[in-house]
Formats: sequence, structure tokens, C-alpha cells
Amino acid sequence: MSNLRVQRTFDALFSLEDVREVFRQSLPTGLTPEQEQHVKESLAKVKEYLAEIEAPDIKTACPPKTRIGNLDIRTREEEYINIHPIQAAGRLTPEARKAIIAYGDGYSTCDYCRKPFRLDKITKPGIDDFHGELAKWLNADQARVTPGARRAFQAVASALVEKGDSVIVSAFAHYTEFLAVEQAGGVVKEVPKNEKNVITADATARKIEDVKKETGKLPVLIMIDHFDYMLANEHDVYGIAKVAKQYGIPFLYNGAYTVGIAPVDAKKIGADFVVGSGHKSMASVAPSGVLGVSNEYAPKVLRTTAMVGDVTKRKFGIKEVENLGCTLMGGTLLSMMASFPTIKERVKDWDEEVQKSNYFLEQFQRVKGSAVLSEWPRKHTLSKVDTTGSYDVIAKTHKRRGFYFSEELTDRGIIGEFAGATRTWKLNTYGLSWEKIKYLSEAFLDIARKYDLPVDSNAASSYAPGEKKKA
Amino acid sequence: MSNLRVQRTFDALFSLEDVREVFRQSLPTGLTPEQEQHVKESLAKVKEYLAEIEAPDIKTACPPKTRIGNLDIRTREEEYINIHPIQAAGRLTPEARKAIIAYGDGYSTCDYCRKPFRLDKITKPGIDDFHGELAKWLNADQARVTPGARRAFQAVASALVEKGDSVIVSAFAHYTEFLAVEQAGGVVKEVPKNEKNVITADATARKIEDVKKETGKLPVLIMIDHFDYMLANEHDVYGIAKVAKQYGIPFLYNGAYTVGIAPVDAKKIGADFVVGSGHKSMASVAPSGVLGVSNEYAPKVLRTTAMVGDVTKRKFGIKEVENLGCTLMGGTLLSMMASFPTIKERVKDWDEEVQKSNYFLEQFQRVKGSAVLSEWPRKHTLSKVDTTGSYDVIAKTHKRRGFYFSEELTDRGIIGEFAGATRTWKLNTYGLSWEKIKYLSEAFLDIARKYDLPVDSNAASSYAPGEKKKA
Repeated sequence: MSNLRVQRTFDALFSLEDVREVFRQSLPTGLTPEQEQHVKESLAKVKEYLAEIEAPDIKTACPPKTRIGNLDIRTREEEYINIHPIQAAGRLTPEARKAIIAYGDGYSTCDYCRKPFRLDKITKPGIDDFHGELAKWLNADQARVTPGARRAFQAVASALVEKGDSVIVSAFAHYTEFLAVEQAGGVVKEVPKNEKNVITADATARKIEDVKKETGKLPVLIMIDHFDYMLANEHDVYGIAKVAKQYGIPFLYNGAYTVGIAPVDAKKIGADFVVGSGHKSMASVAPSGVLGVSNEYAPKVLRTTAMVGDVTKRKFGIKEVENLGCTLMGGTLLSMMASFPTIKERVKDWDEEVQKSNYFLEQFQRVKGSAVLSEWPRKHTLSKVDTTGSYDVIAKTHKRRGFYFSEELTDRGIIGEFAGATRTWKLNTYGLSWEKIKYLSEAFLDIARKYDLPVDSNAASSYAPGEKKKA
Repeated sequence: MSNLRVQRTFDALFSLEDVREVFRQSLPTGLTPEQEQHVKESLAKVKEYLAEIEAPDIKTACPPKTRIGNLDIRTREEEYINIHPIQAAGRLTPEARKAIIAYGDGYSTCDYCRKPFRLDKITKPGIDDFHGELAKWLNADQARVTPGARRAFQAVASALVEKGDSVIVSAFAHYTEFLAVEQAGGVVKEVPKNEKNVITADATARKIEDVKKETGKLPVLIMIDHFDYMLANEHDVYGIAKVAKQYGIPFLYNGAYTVGIAPVDAKKIGADFVVGSGHKSMASVAPSGVLGVSNEYAPKVLRTTAMVGDVTKRKFGIKEVENLGCTLMGGTLLSMMASFPTIKERVKDWDEEVQKSNYFLEQFQRVKGSAVLSEWPRKHTLSKVDTTGSYDVIAKTHKRRGFYFSEELTDRGIIGEFAGATRTWKLNTYGLSWEKIKYLSEAFLDIARKYDLPVDSNAASSYAPGEKKKA
């Protein structure tokens, strides 16, 4: 599927960037005749593209694919319904896309950097205010931006973990938690999941006791994913925070799959640290993330440099050691700031997002042999599904093997599944409208019918739009 | 100065993003009548803006300023000559701007992530190839991208520095080197500058001996900036690399002010590590950077995770500990890749870039009392200047104090000086055309003449375009 109108939208955007480049190359006194000519030609192209966007049928010849040097453009968000497990909530808002057009240049945030020379203190653009709002929104005492959630794990682990120390993580912990602990010289100790694939407060308490018995020392940090990356089941972060408190161990709430899509309140949870991912759940350019810190731990994790040059006696003021000074000095941060008003609103719709996901998965399970491996009903829009008993049966004898399924989805304008996978795989419906959810549901049923897979005839749903059933 | 044509270029880009958003919201089956209407209206706006770009005089009324929510757009690269010390070489190429339009979404690089699931192994887009080309171009055995040069310092320091270890840095070391060492638990030991404000091999050797005497141990790492951030003087990295080799100490070449603008050859230098900054010198979105590593040190600095989950027995394959797995998963990397062909070409023009800077500074020094504090003639386009004896004399009695000077520059379409500074300050002419260089030179002389500052009448230059004098 190739959509001429989408391609021409990119072509028009790119030709306008060519116009912009002429202004960049020009003198303050104005454009030369050659530059005016260049602008004119680029604008003429834009107009042609606009005509094709308006009336795509007037031209039948297929134009060459739009490229940037050797780079293909990426049009899957425009041309498809994207159900990729980790891309859904990192899709940029229109505001973020505009912000990176305006603020893409390297150090674009630093025009008005004044004393004390730190990113989060810059007032124009309003980075200082944003940090205040971010902390308030997370209900954390302080907030910083980081190059991804992983760099927030690193900052915390590096500040709190000494060589050989134990750190409690979940049996579903993301690999970046493992690495952050490993980099700090610590050792991860996993809390086992229960029979429902959930990490509980009791299991965490038992693990703490085990570690104490085994090593003679308490763990120095507990990091738990509210929703994990494997099943996106909800784990008992509230109970775990209480346990952490009882033992006096700092608790890091990993909100990579919540901050930016669901309401998160650090104090209500009882978290000393709250971590979010910009590119995963906050509609921001990668790498970006957020770190909320309690006043209790800020002096350690946000400590400022104490290093003094032995010869020059230089000191670097309020630069923070674990953040290595400034973090997101350009388009990444501005994309997050531009998306922030939308983010603050969209978390209020979390229940409906989950409802939509449950609606889809209910329909999905009408195909006999299709199952949801994550907890049911879903409390998240990311889910692991199992189609071994349905679409994989066809794959076994299909000449395209599992790829037939990807191709059937692609033919219906759906993308983001793991290509070729027909047994267990993950998908995410976050941000899809009800129209898209219904279309998506119908597409899965349609593929099943095409291959004569049995489909439950009962289409009734307790998750349908009118029902407003809360997950 | 407000340029309607520039503003309308942004307006047109933004309205096209609105069109794009309609495609994003639409079903694969096509647009609804309401969506068609929305497209039509946005395209109508684009056409109005195009008309104003083409014939800006037809409308006299000033339109409201273009904003993105509460965010002002940034037009200084289009409307001014920007001489900001750290922004010049991080300005995006048109290709990079197009790439972030296409690849701004969070995990945009991860559409085709397959085993072994690591960013630098992705072949579509060609991230794998890019890493190979990057290593070849740096003449390093291996290359990685990082969230800024500072994160490359951190990776190296964290891998090589144990608590209490000494690390040799320059008396001009950037603060991020201090922080990277501090974060790793080490202590910086500065090599003193000589009378010419240069770090020499001899001084480095002496410092190594001093550290050995003082601590009983050799330093574990030497990090030296080829050109420093304070004066952008050239330091003897070739000689220092030899000294490092003699002592068997790994040497990190800090090319934050060279990689991306000047030819850099890790093996010719004798560097074990070469670090560059994407947002400072490689026309890339922040935070981005590059790290070149020799095969000798790769097993340490690029080591893969050895951590095993004690309960699940999970291991995370080839994820690198110091890089925390994947680094730049979206627009930041794609901007660097899109700029890379231009970057490879532009480093060949380094001599002329320096020549242009020398031409400008020669003219600049025609104003009596204006001086260059960096080494002269310049070997870099970043320079520290002193106008205490010229423009600052006026500031002393001017009612706007030092701001008069900023305002005079702004009136002439020049921006990027430290607002209000009239004594010692920094500027960078990188990437300015000869036309802009001459305009800039004339502007400084013009301000001097306006305030009756004495100007040397001899305008002859050995750095003029025809001369092709090499720095």
C-alpha cells in the first residue's frame, strides 16, 4: 500500500525545508536574485504537491519514492494502524512534530542560557517552568529529564548502589534495570511472580528476607515495574512501596508503561523515585525520559559536583553528577514540552483506553484458539496474545509460513505485529480511536474467516463504547 | 527584526503537519468527509502562506506570532547570522531536518528490530551500515552512538576507573569530563597549560610522574580535548597519545570540537577512544554523540551484560552494559545519519573554515582595543575575544550598558553573542559563507565607527578568499 497523498505531504514538507534553507543561507539584508529564484522553484513544487494531495486522482503515474539521501521516509503512522507493542504511546503529537521542526538544531534550547548555566534553569523557552510542572504532575518533590528511562535507572543505581550490593527487581524487570544495576556494580535479585504472573508485596518482603539471610545485608534499592514489558500485568506497587518503607529501602517506581498514559502519583504510591519514558509513553523524541525524586533522596541522587581541579581550582557549580550536567539540550526536550499539555489531558482517558483494548481483545478471542496470555480483563493496552491455536495452524501449511499472517494484516492496513510471528506475540492499541479499534477487530475476524478458522458468532460486548465499563 | 516570509514558512510547515495528522487519524479505508474537509482547510491555509512567502508585500498587517501552544518558534537561524560559540556546527542540515520530520516518533528506528535486538544491528533503516561507516570514518575499530559526548566519557570512565583512581585531564577540560570521572569515583588531575595556553606532551608526562609520586599509582586514563571550550586552542594530542602509549595508559581523544567539522583519524592520533558530539559538531539533534573504541579496549568498554536473573535465569544477550543497551532509538540518530554525507564532505573544507574565521578576526582587530585571546592565527572557528579596550569603553557610559552592543549587533542581523558582554566573550564563525563573513566583519567595524572608536584603515588581508592561506 502506497499512499500518494501521504507521500506528497512529505514532499511538500521537504520542499518547504528547502525554502527555509535559503533563508538560513541568506544575508540579513535579504535574498539575492538567485536565492529568490530558488525559493520560487521550491514553492512551485510545493504547490504541485498540494494539488496532488487535494485531488490525488489527477495523476496516474507513480512518482519516485520520496527519500532523504539514502533514507526512506517512514509513513507507517500515516498509512497504517500501528499496533507495535512499544511504539503506540511514543508517537508524537502534532505539537511535538512542530516543536522539532522549530527546535531541531543541536543546542536549540541554549539561546538564553544564563547563570547558573543548567538546562532545567533556562526560562526561555520555559524549561524551568516545565520542570516545576512536571514535578507537580508526578507529585514528586523534584523532577529532571533524562536521555531515556534507562538513564534515570542509571542515575539512581549509580548514586545508591555500591559494589556487591543487592538490588531487588521484578521477575519481569526490563533489561535496562539489569544493566543499570550491573553498571553500578550491584547484583539484581528478582522477586518471583505468583501463579497469576503478578509481583506481590508479600513476595517482595520474602525476597528481602532471603537476600538479608543470604548476604547478611539488606538490599539497597527496590525497582519495580508497575506494568511490565512482557505481559503488561499490573504489579502491586502500592503494597511493595509499603514493604520498602518498612525496611527503610528506597523504592523506584518504574513507570515506563504508565507515566504519560495513566495517572501516576509518586506520593500516593509511596515511591521515592518515579521514572518515565519520553519515547515510550510521553509522545517525545528518543532518547528522553523523566525522573521524579523525593526530597529525602535528592541530596544523593541529584547531588552537585564536588570535584575541584587540582591545578586550576575550577569548580562547576550546580551541575549534577549523576545527570552529567545538562541532559536533553534540544529537540528531544522541546518535543516533550510541546506534548505535555496533551499528555496531561490524555492520562485522564486511561480507563477508556483500557476499555477499547478489552473490546478489541474480546473480539480477537472470538477466533477459536486465540488467547490472551496477559491477565484478563486487561488493565493495560499492551498485551501478549497467543494465536498458536488459530492463525498459527494455517501458518503450519502455508507456503509463506507465519508471514502470511503479517501480509494479511498489511493488506488490511495493519502493521506493527512481529513479522512472521503467529504463536505468542505482543500488541498495543494505545491511542487508537473507537473507529480504528472496530476496524482492527473486524480485520482479525476477517482473516480468520478467510482461512476457515472457527469464529464465535456472539459479537456482543460489555466493553463497547456505550458501556463505559472501567477496567 | 521579524521576517514575515520566515514566519509564513513555519506556518506552512505546521499546517502541513495538521494535514499529516488527519492521515494519522484516518482509517486504512480512507478519509471521512469531515477529514477531507479538514485537509482542505489546512491546505487552503498553506496556500495563503505560500502566497505571502512569494509576495510578502501584498499584506501590510502583521499576523500574530506563530506559536506551538505556549512555545515561541525559534527563527534565529533563518533571520540572523548566528555566532553563538557552541551552536554553529550543531545546526541541522536540510537532510537532518527532513529526517526528523519523518522519524520524530519515539521508537521510530525500531520497526524492523530483529535478533539480536540491538540498535546498532538494525539494517532498516541502515543503522548497522552507518555504524560501520562511522568507525571507518573515525578510523576507529568500533563505533557507537551515545546520548552526547558526555555519555561517551561516562561509558569509558565507568569501565576503566575504580574508586580513588586518578584520571589525567587538561587544565582546559570540559566540565563533563570532571563529572564523568566524579561519577565513576575517580579524581581528576589537571595538566597545566604552558605560557601559550597550550597543553603539551611534556607537561602531560610530568603530570603522570607527579600523580605516580603522589598516589603511588599511575593514572588509569588520560582524556584530552583536541581544541578546548575556553579558547579553542589546539593541544598536542598527537604527542600526548605517544606519552600515554609509553606509560601504557589508555588515551581518550575529546573531539567535541573537531569530529564533524575537521578531519579526525583515531589511529593517526594514537587514540584508544575518540569522542564526538552530535549536537555540537555533527549537525544532529541533542542529545547525541559518538564513541570510537579500539579493539584493545572494546572488551572492557563495550562489554556485554553478564548479569543473570537469580530466579528467572534471564540473560540479555549482547546488550552493552556501559551503553545501557540501545542508545539513540529515534530522531536523534536519524538526524545524525541524514547529516553524515554532508559531514563527511564538510570536514574537507576545514582549512577554509579556519581561513574565514581568521579573515573575520583580522578585520575585527582593526578596531583598536579589540583583541583575540585565543592563539593567533586561529586554528579553529571558535575564539575568545576581548573588547574591553573597544566596545566596552562605550558600555561604561552608555545608558544600556553592555546591552547597547548586543542591540547594535541585533539591528544588523547578528545574534549569538553573550547578551550584555562587552569584555571577554566567545564567538564561532563555523559554516558562515564568505558573504556572511564579510558582512559580519563590516558590521563590527560599522558599530565601532558609529561610536567613534578608532579603526585601522588598512583593510588588506592575507586571509581573503583568493589567498587560500592555510591556517
